[in-house]
Amino acid sequence: MQQRSEETRARILGAALKKFSSSGYDAASVDDICAEAGVSKGAFYHHFPSKQAVFLALFENWLTMVDAGLETARKPTVPETLTNMARMLPFIFAQADGRLPMFLEFWLQASRDKAVWKVINAPYKRYLNYFAALVKQGIAEGSFHRMDPGSAAQVIVSFAVGMLLQGLIAPQDTDWQKAAEQSMKILMKGLAK
Amino acid sequence: MQQRSEETRARILGAALKKFSSSGYDAASVDDICAEAGVSKGAFYHHFPSKQAVFLALFENWLTMVDAGLETARKPTVPETLTNMARMLPFIFAQADGRLPMFLEFWLQASRDKAVWKVINAPYKRYLNYFAALVKQGIAEGSFHRMDPGSAAQVIVSFAVGMLLQGLIAPQDTDWQKAAEQSMKILMKGLAK
Repeated sequence: MQQRSEETRARILGAALKKFSSSGYDAASVDDICAEAGVSKGAFYHHFPSKQAVFLALFENWLTMVDAGLETARKPTVPETLTNMARMLPFIFAQADGRLPMFLEFWLQASRDKAVWKVINAPYKRYLNYFAALVKQGIAEGSFHRMDPGSAAQVIVSFAVGMLLQGLIAPQDTDWQKAAEQSMKILMKGLAK
Repeated sequence: MQQRSEETRARILGAALKKFSSSGYDAASVDDICAEAGVSKGAFYHHFPSKQAVFLALFENWLTMVDAGLETARKPTVPETLTNMARMLPFIFAQADGRLPMFLEFWLQASRDKAVWKVINAPYKRYLNYFAALVKQGIAEGSFHRMDPGSAAQVIVSFAVGMLLQGLIAPQDTDWQKAAEQSMKILMKGLAK
């Protein structure tokens, strides 16, 4: 029974991802998601209290993957770590498959809706702190010059988010892995001692 | 007559900006815009063939303001110019008033709709070329080290777009002018000879 329940949950998540990506978050209804997943509305509400809850579950899943990716990218020194992360950027985006447009939409709603905003703001702050700590470590190990780690973290996050947004509208035009590596090279020189 | 027609056009644009910002592009109908502007549907379609055409007019207006801002920021050397542009970034965003969430939405649609994509992609490419030319000039004047100007332009655009996106969800949290200046300082060091 437990296993079947997990399967249903996974089917709902997969269907929601598909629907949110193709029609957009607002346009995709719970009915659409149920039809796509082949589950009843009762089953849906057994697993998730609302459409937003499904969205958040997808968002959390993706954050977990991003976090795992970031940890895997760790190297002995901070410049090596950041360069390695830049190299992984396109793969992290690829893992997001249909989620990126959806997250943009959520970001958009966050600018209008306080409840959504809180959900986005927490991981955003967490990533800022994560990169500030990395920069601090880079200063301590003698790789980076002395600077405000918060400002440096903001540049790194801006860079990642900006790459993501550009990748979204020009996925074929550019070799994003090469672009990310070359950009990180410029950034590394900017942070270096 | 001509003057009254111009007034009507401006009223439609103002009403559309208001509606798109508060309800979102999809949810705001031509009827809503007409009601807000106090004009008939006939008057609307006399000025604009479609809702999308109004959106594009708002987009073009904003690009014109951004271009004017960028030209005003010009200084004798390229590092001074870029630093000055970073300083202006928060004002450029402020000029966008309610337009930013709307543009994000458009960006989102561009990832799904080829026609919208073309409209976004052209100015995006234009800005990439604009900054690549600036970097080339910086190399020629001896301010920057030799590098691929296209990659450097991508970092600059990523940085600006990333700042914009962060400013959208955390407008009060951060002194964005200071953040932009400090970030540009790191970037300038990365580009320097």
